[in-house]
Amino acid sequence: MMNDRILGVLGGMGPLASAEFMRSLTLQTPALRDQDHIPAILVSDGRVPDRTAARQGLGPDPLPALIRGIRILEAAGCGAIVIPCNTAHGWYGGMAAATALPILHIVDAAAADLRAQGIEGGRIGLMGTAATLAMRLYEDHLPGYEVIRPDAAEQAELVTPGIELVKAADEAGAYTPLAEMAARLHARGARAVVLGCTEIPLGIAAGPPLPFLVVDTVAALARAAIAWSRA
Amino acid sequence: MMNDRILGVLGGMGPLASAEFMRSLTLQTPALRDQDHIPAILVSDGRVPDRTAARQGLGPDPLPALIRGIRILEAAGCGAIVIPCNTAHGWYGGMAAATALPILHIVDAAAADLRAQGIEGGRIGLMGTAATLAMRLYEDHLPGYEVIRPDAAEQAELVTPGIELVKAADEAGAYTPLAEMAARLHARGARAVVLGCTEIPLGIAAGPPLPFLVVDTVAALARAAIAWSRA
Repeated sequence: MMNDRILGVLGGMGPLASAEFMRSLTLQTPALRDQDHIPAILVSDGRVPDRTAARQGLGPDPLPALIRGIRILEAAGCGAIVIPCNTAHGWYGGMAAATALPILHIVDAAAADLRAQGIEGGRIGLMGTAATLAMRLYEDHLPGYEVIRPDAAEQAELVTPGIELVKAADEAGAYTPLAEMAARLHARGARAVVLGCTEIPLGIAAGPPLPFLVVDTVAALARAAIAWSRA
Repeated sequence: MMNDRILGVLGGMGPLASAEFMRSLTLQTPALRDQDHIPAILVSDGRVPDRTAARQGLGPDPLPALIRGIRILEAAGCGAIVIPCNTAHGWYGGMAAATALPILHIVDAAAADLRAQGIEGGRIGLMGTAATLAMRLYEDHLPGYEVIRPDAAEQAELVTPGIELVKAADEAGAYTPLAEMAARLHARGARAVVLGCTEIPLGIAAGPPLPFLVVDTVAALARAAIAWSRA
């Protein structure tokens, strides 16, 4: 039994992505019965101030709310933290400084997934929130890759509305704009497209599979958590 | 904003049902953005001793582990508790005696769903674990209904294997035996079939919809939680 360490999940950003993270964690853990699974505590608190608005100077700082969630996970005895929200990793430094627990970085998980798919470098596509793009979360953590991204019009017309549709529980409606944007990045030479906002894989899962490689950052983060649990 | 009360979810029994509860809670909450959702803390700890084995005298008492989970939810500031596992409600009295927080009973949620579907009495079918059936969890909480159930051979050949397949992450494989059993209860005159184990709706969702009324106890419990949040 390797499941004596409790995983802390700082979630609610959004809540549907957190539920999908828990599902992905469960389905990817080799298990025949309940007792084989990784014990986990999920704090799903959508009241964390909007990360994109904060980064654009249009809303309050989410860091205090993020740290309140971390305190709950610490008190519950968790041994590590994952955050199924790419944009929240813009506050990674502040969170890491506030806790002794390791926080498994979602971009590291995405990079591991790229390598596992045989993509060690070259051009990749990135889809994410406007804030994730503005903060250069991926570019600054993925040396050796050329990261291409939607232009401003595509971000406003395809990616942001797709993310918002998932947050409003319309996964089926989100498929068309998100799949269209992924296809454009693939057509521009991306060897894989990183679905770098945890809402995006939910929209993409609501329609036909994309005929090229993608990185599902929800599933990739779940695999990083499983690796931590077994280490 | 009506979301200042935190919902506590005592889960992990099994973990996939807990993830589905979080998804159902999110999808059924009227919301356009993260901040509209009900704050929730999920303790997903599959290490809780097997409830069916305990009731059959074949394993340790799960009550101490259940109460440890409740203590985490209390410490995190939760205002009520839900438990997305029917069988665990066999220890409802012991849990309720151990906490001042209200625990929303899953059989009450199922009864509300029967009424919402227009079924105020008469014959209904019940599928659940052998322990749920042996404890008469539903019969003793559903006055006015005639509850019919699988016979012992059907329980052993269809229901128990179906539940175990979901716990082993084979939702598609679980569909055939579970759907067959539900159809038999319907054919015996059940006006609706209560999917009275939280794994069962996951198996049923993996195939074609059943052509008769069912009560999905995961979705029903989520609706009870939403009603609590708004009360």
